[in-house]
Amino acid sequence: MAGSTFGTIFKVTTWGESHGKALGVVIDGCPAGLELAEADIQQYLDRRKPGTSAVTTSRKEEDTVEILSGLFEGRTTGTPISLMVRNTSQRSGDYSEIASYYRPGHADYTFDAKYGFRDYRGGGRSSGRETVGRVAAGAVACRILEKLGVRVCAYTRSIGPVEADPAKFSRDAIGRTITAMPDEEADALAVKYLEEIRRETDSAGGCMECLVEGLPAGIGDPVFDKLDANLARAVMSIGAVKAVEIGDGCLVSARRGSENNDAFRMREGSVVKETNHAGGILGGISDGDIIVVRAHVKPTPSIARTQRTVGRSGGEMEVAVRGRHDPVIVPRAVVVLECMTALTVLDAMLMNLSARMDSIVDFYRSR
Amino acid sequence: MAGSTFGTIFKVTTWGESHGKALGVVIDGCPAGLELAEADIQQYLDRRKPGTSAVTTSRKEEDTVEILSGLFEGRTTGTPISLMVRNTSQRSGDYSEIASYYRPGHADYTFDAKYGFRDYRGGGRSSGRETVGRVAAGAVACRILEKLGVRVCAYTRSIGPVEADPAKFSRDAIGRTITAMPDEEADALAVKYLEEIRRETDSAGGCMECLVEGLPAGIGDPVFDKLDANLARAVMSIGAVKAVEIGDGCLVSARRGSENNDAFRMREGSVVKETNHAGGILGGISDGDIIVVRAHVKPTPSIARTQRTVGRSGGEMEVAVRGRHDPVIVPRAVVVLECMTALTVLDAMLMNLSARMDSIVDFYRSR
Amino acid sequence: MAGSTFGTIFKVTTWGESHGKALGVVIDGCPAGLELAEADIQQYLDRRKPGTSAVTTSRKEEDTVEILSGLFEGRTTGTPISLMVRNTSQRSGDYSEIASYYRPGHADYTFDAKYGFRDYRGGGRSSGRETVGRVAAGAVACRILEKLGVRVCAYTRSIGPVEADPAKFSRDAIGRTITAMPDEEADALAVKYLEEIRRETDSAGGCMECLVEGLPAGIGDPVFDKLDANLARAVMSIGAVKAVEIGDGCLVSARRGSENNDAFRMREGSVVKETNHAGGILGGISDGDIIVVRAHVKPTPSIARTQRTVGRSGGEMEVAVRGRHDPVIVPRAVVVLECMTALTVLDAMLMNLSARMDSIVDFYRSR
Amino acid sequence: MAGSTFGTIFKVTTWGESHGKALGVVIDGCPAGLELAEADIQQYLDRRKPGTSAVTTSRKEEDTVEILSGLFEGRTTGTPISLMVRNTSQRSGDYSEIASYYRPGHADYTFDAKYGFRDYRGGGRSSGRETVGRVAAGAVACRILEKLGVRVCAYTRSIGPVEADPAKFSRDAIGRTITAMPDEEADALAVKYLEEIRRETDSAGGCMECLVEGLPAGIGDPVFDKLDANLARAVMSIGAVKAVEIGDGCLVSARRGSENNDAFRMREGSVVKETNHAGGILGGISDGDIIVVRAHVKPTPSIARTQRTVGRSGGEMEVAVRGRHDPVIVPRAVVVLECMTALTVLDAMLMNLSARMDSIVDFYRSR
Repeated sequence: MAGSTFGTIFKVTTWGESHGKALGVVIDGCPAGLELAEADIQQYLDRRKPGTSAVTTSRKEEDTVEILSGLFEGRTTGTPISLMVRNTSQRSGDYSEIASYYRPGHADYTFDAKYGFRDYRGGGRSSGRETVGRVAAGAVACRILEKLGVRVCAYTRSIGPVEADPAKFSRDAIGRTITAMPDEEADALAVKYLEEIRRETDSAGGCMECLVEGLPAGIGDPVFDKLDANLARAVMSIGAVKAVEIGDGCLVSARRGSENNDAFRMREGSVVKETNHAGGILGGISDGDIIVVRAHVKPTPSIARTQRTVGRSGGEMEVAVRGRHDPVIVPRAVVVLECMTALTVLDAMLMNLSARMDSIVDFYRSR
Repeated sequence: MAGSTFGTIFKVTTWGESHGKALGVVIDGCPAGLELAEADIQQYLDRRKPGTSAVTTSRKEEDTVEILSGLFEGRTTGTPISLMVRNTSQRSGDYSEIASYYRPGHADYTFDAKYGFRDYRGGGRSSGRETVGRVAAGAVACRILEKLGVRVCAYTRSIGPVEADPAKFSRDAIGRTITAMPDEEADALAVKYLEEIRRETDSAGGCMECLVEGLPAGIGDPVFDKLDANLARAVMSIGAVKAVEIGDGCLVSARRGSENNDAFRMREGSVVKETNHAGGILGGISDGDIIVVRAHVKPTPSIARTQRTVGRSGGEMEVAVRGRHDPVIVPRAVVVLECMTALTVLDAMLMNLSARMDSIVDFYRSR
Repeated sequence: MAGSTFGTIFKVTTWGESHGKALGVVIDGCPAGLELAEADIQQYLDRRKPGTSAVTTSRKEEDTVEILSGLFEGRTTGTPISLMVRNTSQRSGDYSEIASYYRPGHADYTFDAKYGFRDYRGGGRSSGRETVGRVAAGAVACRILEKLGVRVCAYTRSIGPVEADPAKFSRDAIGRTITAMPDEEADALAVKYLEEIRRETDSAGGCMECLVEGLPAGIGDPVFDKLDANLARAVMSIGAVKAVEIGDGCLVSARRGSENNDAFRMREGSVVKETNHAGGILGGISDGDIIVVRAHVKPTPSIARTQRTVGRSGGEMEVAVRGRHDPVIVPRAVVVLECMTALTVLDAMLMNLSARMDSIVDFYRSR
Repeated sequence: MAGSTFGTIFKVTTWGESHGKALGVVIDGCPAGLELAEADIQQYLDRRKPGTSAVTTSRKEEDTVEILSGLFEGRTTGTPISLMVRNTSQRSGDYSEIASYYRPGHADYTFDAKYGFRDYRGGGRSSGRETVGRVAAGAVACRILEKLGVRVCAYTRSIGPVEADPAKFSRDAIGRTITAMPDEEADALAVKYLEEIRRETDSAGGCMECLVEGLPAGIGDPVFDKLDANLARAVMSIGAVKAVEIGDGCLVSARRGSENNDAFRMREGSVVKETNHAGGILGGISDGDIIVVRAHVKPTPSIARTQRTVGRSGGEMEVAVRGRHDPVIVPRAVVVLECMTALTVLDAMLMNLSARMDSIVDFYRSR
């Protein structure tokens, strides 16, 4: 399969390309009885909408979701939920030029190498628009997690050289700031930086982080389906992500055990950790602490300044990628990180329902 | 399922715990006609063997592999290959004490939280010995990759503060050095550092890197089965890994597009990149360049110095973890990284056989 | 997952219920480069269309397929193909009554038992309309199989007591006859029988058969993914099918080995069988002969005559199921059998691409 | 993958061939906390042991199971359970002759066609011995089902022309009779028939049936993972099975709706069916009634009388298959049917744990 399916029990299959008729997702395995409406999903899609500020593309993307199946009288029935967003404002004219060459940093060349040709309109399936399906499905996952007492929250940690100050962390700020940073001062600096970058016909990278709170200990499976392993796949599968960290991430390789181990203590009768270097995961299984996942995002490869590349026909050439591009994708990718994290955590929680004989016996004997 | 299966076509299922009777793996989907002998696998297992230097545990682990099925007259038959290693020198006595409390940085607590109890002997399934099955299967994958012209090579990049110097990179050194570093001078410094760490009853983390050379462009699938996404899962699933980087990894988040894009050029009639910031992957698909994967490994959590923790019964206490532990696991984990990378790349190559109509038609029409 | 995904490489996920907004399917893993148009799919959907004769329901179902993704300039791109059919002429009024009780022979009770409630409009997901997605995907599979020299053909073998005479088998007749029988005389008798059945406010069962011609030997995998095992699942998953036979099927249990074994002979330099009791499959792998699959379909459970049942609230009652129902579903189900067979055979052929080292080496070395 | 894995949550992977070193299975996803001992598994393996009567092969197969992993202090830990049976009494000499030709009715030719060569010793992976792994895993599944109040029981329904009389059904008889028939008189006739068949150097087919009692309503998923669809795959995957029936099976195709529908009634406050033509499954989901599955088994293809076939080198020839073969495999296959049914039902029950929001919320909120 071409790798468009994610999850084992809560299984999502996304489809659609940048300039096709529509994009969407099918969720198979959503539990029955969840109250769900298009508005619940729309609010997540709106968070990835561009054109909302000076520092994102001026392209209009009116992404309106339609629920095509799986609901009856406002509740999920346990059968597949099909969600669709029509592509409305795609102008193929913008992209016809790039059919002839390979944009540096893009998947143009690799798609041609794999399939022999490609849908070059706006990057086709490798476009950021592919995330529409992920976000629509993730919105449903987040809604289920809420009912289970689990909250997932992602934000921008840094853009180029500008980092949010953890000391100034404010959850409200995330929704308010242009860059989705939890620190308004850093946000202002980041915006200045992005304006400067744009003037220089360049682009910026950034780092985003996601927290999962309220997750009970015991979620995740040993060996290949470790919670952190599946999170790493989920997050690295987001276009432009080049590194994934759990907890203190890269820092641990320079540490000593005595610095890095989190001591266990008792608090109100339950086991807790004094610190959370581990990012809430030990041996691939949640430890009851906050899950911390970080993703490093490369700068938008589409830049208007001249670059060297080769054409489809094999000749070397110089190009300047025209079109309306985000100088940085992080602010819009934050909701994608949140959704991929939610999909991973929910699937692991559903898988965990069959971990113990005693609870299975209870389930069937209590009937 | 408890997550012990990896891969879609070349599918491996590992089993076994630190102090059980044996450990092993079943490979389902190995192509028929591969010449294979126990010696081919044994040489990989020997690379993860401890007790070979001053800086690894003095535990004896004579891991001898036995091929139980799937071969006939020295060649694979296309049916499951079952590989087993008997546990010989496990002394349960060493571990009885830790039954009573949760070792900081270990999975003791999370296994109890998930399953209600745990096999506490040597960490059970969360032990580093679990990787025996991965390495045995990876050895077979590496052998197949060789025949396809693909070479996978992993090494130690840093231990604590000591980094190998890329300028002094020597492939031969990797096999010679105690730390599996490609730089003999750095190796000497690392060994000194580890002796010092051990004197201080502490432990060290480190960073390891894996290169895949000779991989054609076009390997990997869009969206969720991107080559880098599956590599991230594969590598993060190795115990103690807390971060995974592809190509320039974390560095990209502070870069500009003009710095980070790799220009395409022509060389001997084929498309190449002038630089390889991308680590050989664009849009989740290999671009024909060298694949670069990096893993950051936390310090060995078992240290002899006193730490605070809680007991199974819920009381707070102080412990010092006794037993013979590696001061750093990186030198022995390098072969595990190599094997997990090989398993991921091979499975993607087999999946790619069905990417195009023309080659499928050729396959069946040429019969 | 709720079981709406079928296939490993050529992976289809269907969605939609009888009275929802639409029904559809996502095909993930379709090879790139296949020429495809909506008309190719529409002709298969038209074969399951009712209202085309006196012996099918008079309900109007104008099922018009829309290709939403996965194509570029008339060819498949290798990315997911999303196919949708809008529900147009569903009158919920017809069904409101059955909300209150469990129709005998239907899934009303079991859906309530599983999910706590159900979408009672026209059977929801358990409706025959669910097969729209299967047929749309199967049409694509059939098109690929054609290019590989494989032809799949299903027809009606019997309706109630009326059996088609193998001696009068005519492929053209299948498309011409009202009942999709390959024997015009039997068809006439079957139509008379169905008119009689309908007058008696009753319904009929029947048997349908599918042949796969041109399939090379070697398709299917040992043990659990035997070609016949996957065909059995595929066919039994069609609503109302209660038995699946391969080759001589049930007859073999009363036979002797000397009667049932098919002798091997040579013809034009290749191995053939003198007879085909095996139905083209030995040890779960195709033997180069014609694949023969048979499905026994129960009578339409919706009948206008009075039946005893219970209401949702638990009271016993008598009901007569109103509405416009097929007196027999076989003539419309034949195309579903053809499509499920095609999906199974194609997936097995794609899986077979990785069966041998030599062909894999050829594939990558010839690049 | 070569199709040696079965199940989604309770996932079993079998390995081994007739004349390899050993055969076995890995169970991944077995819930933690199940009390299990080798004796629990051995009693199932002993039921497939030959040489226990005049009507089975005189080959000795001392199949002794060894639990290699996944248990601690007599209970399952939730990690993979590896079960192994060493091949002890295989005499390769018996089989060397058949290397040179294709036995009619066997998989010799199809394995060669697929893989280019085969392990010809005793049929290799296509041997009946492959079921050792299925039975070992099924024994564990049966033990779990017991704790959930579900009983699985298979028996011989007919051998050649001799049928057990349902009126004389006796559960105790199944274990006592040589043919595993539930009717001692029919058993005596069947034994006579088999002795006659053997004298005539021929073999017999038969039919076996499996009942599942105590299964709650609501098990199985719509569309492709219908309980009957997965049972059909599981049962058809058993070597020599050529037809699978659910409930009244093939008979339904000649019936009328008024005869075939099972009326619902109330009994002690719960919904029941007056009859069970459906075999306990409606719309692919269990209805609370007894599940009835039937399998038709072909006659043992190995017969000592002369048959026509072709050699590996392509020449036509006449052969008589020597060796010690069962004149009918049904009595030994009954336990395999029981085990495959148990594996299918258990996996569906575990999948059903995530069907409803309310029970998932209860599970996590009650913590």
